[in-house]
Amino acid sequence: MTVTSETLKKTGSSTRPTVDSFQPRARMLLGPGPSNVHPSVTAALAKPLVGHLDPQFLAVMDDVQDMLRGVFLTDNRLTLAVSGTGSAGMEATLVNLVEPGDEVLVCVNGLFGQRMADIVERIGGVLHTIARPWGDVFALEEIAAALDRHPSTTLVTIVHAETSTGALQPLVGLADICHDRGALLVVDAVTSLAGCELRIDDWGIDACYSGTQKCLSCPPGLAPVTVGPRGLEKMKRRTTRAVSWYLDFSLIQSYWTDGRRAYHHTAPIAMNYALHQALRLVLAEGLETRWQRHGLHSSALMAGLAALGFVPFAAENQRLPMLNAVRLPEDFDEAPIRRELLDAYDIEIGGGLGELAGRVWRVGLMGESATRQSVFSLLTALEDILLRRGRSQGIGAGVEAATRSYHALSE
Amino acid sequence: MTVTSETLKKTGSSTRPTVDSFQPRARMLLGPGPSNVHPSVTAALAKPLVGHLDPQFLAVMDDVQDMLRGVFLTDNRLTLAVSGTGSAGMEATLVNLVEPGDEVLVCVNGLFGQRMADIVERIGGVLHTIARPWGDVFALEEIAAALDRHPSTTLVTIVHAETSTGALQPLVGLADICHDRGALLVVDAVTSLAGCELRIDDWGIDACYSGTQKCLSCPPGLAPVTVGPRGLEKMKRRTTRAVSWYLDFSLIQSYWTDGRRAYHHTAPIAMNYALHQALRLVLAEGLETRWQRHGLHSSALMAGLAALGFVPFAAENQRLPMLNAVRLPEDFDEAPIRRELLDAYDIEIGGGLGELAGRVWRVGLMGESATRQSVFSLLTALEDILLRRGRSQGIGAGVEAATRSYHALSE
Repeated sequence: MTVTSETLKKTGSSTRPTVDSFQPRARMLLGPGPSNVHPSVTAALAKPLVGHLDPQFLAVMDDVQDMLRGVFLTDNRLTLAVSGTGSAGMEATLVNLVEPGDEVLVCVNGLFGQRMADIVERIGGVLHTIARPWGDVFALEEIAAALDRHPSTTLVTIVHAETSTGALQPLVGLADICHDRGALLVVDAVTSLAGCELRIDDWGIDACYSGTQKCLSCPPGLAPVTVGPRGLEKMKRRTTRAVSWYLDFSLIQSYWTDGRRAYHHTAPIAMNYALHQALRLVLAEGLETRWQRHGLHSSALMAGLAALGFVPFAAENQRLPMLNAVRLPEDFDEAPIRRELLDAYDIEIGGGLGELAGRVWRVGLMGESATRQSVFSLLTALEDILLRRGRSQGIGAGVEAATRSYHALSE
Repeated sequence: MTVTSETLKKTGSSTRPTVDSFQPRARMLLGPGPSNVHPSVTAALAKPLVGHLDPQFLAVMDDVQDMLRGVFLTDNRLTLAVSGTGSAGMEATLVNLVEPGDEVLVCVNGLFGQRMADIVERIGGVLHTIARPWGDVFALEEIAAALDRHPSTTLVTIVHAETSTGALQPLVGLADICHDRGALLVVDAVTSLAGCELRIDDWGIDACYSGTQKCLSCPPGLAPVTVGPRGLEKMKRRTTRAVSWYLDFSLIQSYWTDGRRAYHHTAPIAMNYALHQALRLVLAEGLETRWQRHGLHSSALMAGLAALGFVPFAAENQRLPMLNAVRLPEDFDEAPIRRELLDAYDIEIGGGLGELAGRVWRVGLMGESATRQSVFSLLTALEDILLRRGRSQGIGAGVEAATRSYHALSE
């Protein structure tokens, strides 16, 4: 990189930049997202670009909405892809459903619960929180008790799949608890959507958001969201406008869902092409098959990692299949080994976030990355590294345990 | 489309969707954006996806920032691509530089000025506006006079290239007027960046935002922004947090510019690949050469359209080269002809927005779309349509006038 603005100012139009084109080495993406994408999704990105009001693109938007409804398992009309990443989906959902002064109960057991609390405060909500240690999940009774302590609460927010800890929050029955107490239920499904069971309508969830780069296996850049009848009613009753113009569903609806196709902003065309193809693949596989696939590979990976001395972080039966968080073995050279996996084996995994930095690994097996190849590539690479670092006992144990796990589960 | 969430609920994993893959017809994109993209930019989208903390991607981010500084003609360290479209860039800039209670002067002479005013109000700014009829631009004196009427104003916002009207706002000297009165200057360069002269540092602009899908000729999805020393100072002096977490520069900086690479959100990887390549092409052409190219083709197009009875909407010497707004000939069947251009000729142009709906056309010649091929394809298609609609006189006049314009300007 030798071109600078100084150079350019001096030389005007004769400047020729020397920034090289780049050709990234391909990685096996086993971190907390992005996950690997199917070649047909990559190809979709490169389809001819058309305008955001071109009838061809409007048809793509309609398909994307229909397929998102299929993946969220909802009939909600307001189901669309927000033009930002998963965190924009979080902000969009809260900005539309929370007015200044509204009391909001945020359940915090990891980084993303903290983020929701942060956003609620910024937009003027009155924040109540209940907390659990990172890695734990909430019992429905304690959420009910918190609502009873704060009877004016209008909204409860909770993370289904805490990507920072690997914990899976049970949700069945929670909506009734919220509704009985006059509150809506908002669920963060950034990591869970299409990777484990999630049923928006059956479970009574009033609003939910996700990201494209996790179990949907699409590049990052869009945030699927869905809002049900209670959420729409809340939006209608607002006496203030949303603090965000960009994320205001009442405006975005006029472009996406209400038939007017009113210009709001220029949608990310290529990203919606990619999401269209990614959703086709999800539905072609079948949701339940896909959920089972994530469970199968997670079990094998966790068996293999346990044999190598890693300890699951979240308690059994409340672990995410698509994001496997593990405590590290004693005296484990965390950062250098993680870097070696990337540099020498082209395998990306995730380190710990926030208070878990340096203490856990987070191994994603999401979407296209949830495969036998991923499991055995990581385990063999780890055994290779451990052997070269002087460990002689137990080499091969990870692969053996994973093999036995697959065998047991395929009986 | 026959799969529905109902179907899926009934059939579970055996559902097979019937959403077809799509292969859009390629368009000549001569609307208000997106513009056509170079094949190498399309190819960049499809490069191997890596993680948002992969050293390979961090290098791409560094390059993108350096090249954006080259295109903005600035040394501002806080220069990066916001993970949303151009309107997200507008909201990000205002959300970071305006605190509740701050007095903001918004100059409104088109739709995008209105949008800035809308955002300022939503985030709690005290709004002052001055207005000009759509198509006009502001004299610097009237902005000075407005600031003198509102001496506590902290920020002035103005649109450089009003995409709704085709008017080009002169900016040289405006920063001094603002600074002398204690206000910062924010410029909307969504449509102007890389298409006509814009010099952030030389002109003293304190913050500026743009979009990727206009004269940078990259698909929509990112918003280049830059903030200078006065803007940073204002951000430091804030006593409240920005109302947006997603767009909070104080957090985004920790990922992009301050060396910490702290996780904020998962950047749109593929979109940044595309922007990287698009910026390489801009700098390889040279900014001044690129500005001249936009001017050349605009002159030819406007000559051709005038010969066919269209009348420039903005006054001479205050017209945008990259977005050519014209009043329609008498008794002109606007919407059907525009649709015919799209359906029969695969040419997209823009209709009027807001109060100009049905009254003007907006023809974009942006980036890769600013070519002789674009100009003559549109003019010949129009002459074809007019001939078939019974107009016999003046057919060929558009092409002739454009040809003469090119000839005169290449002397």
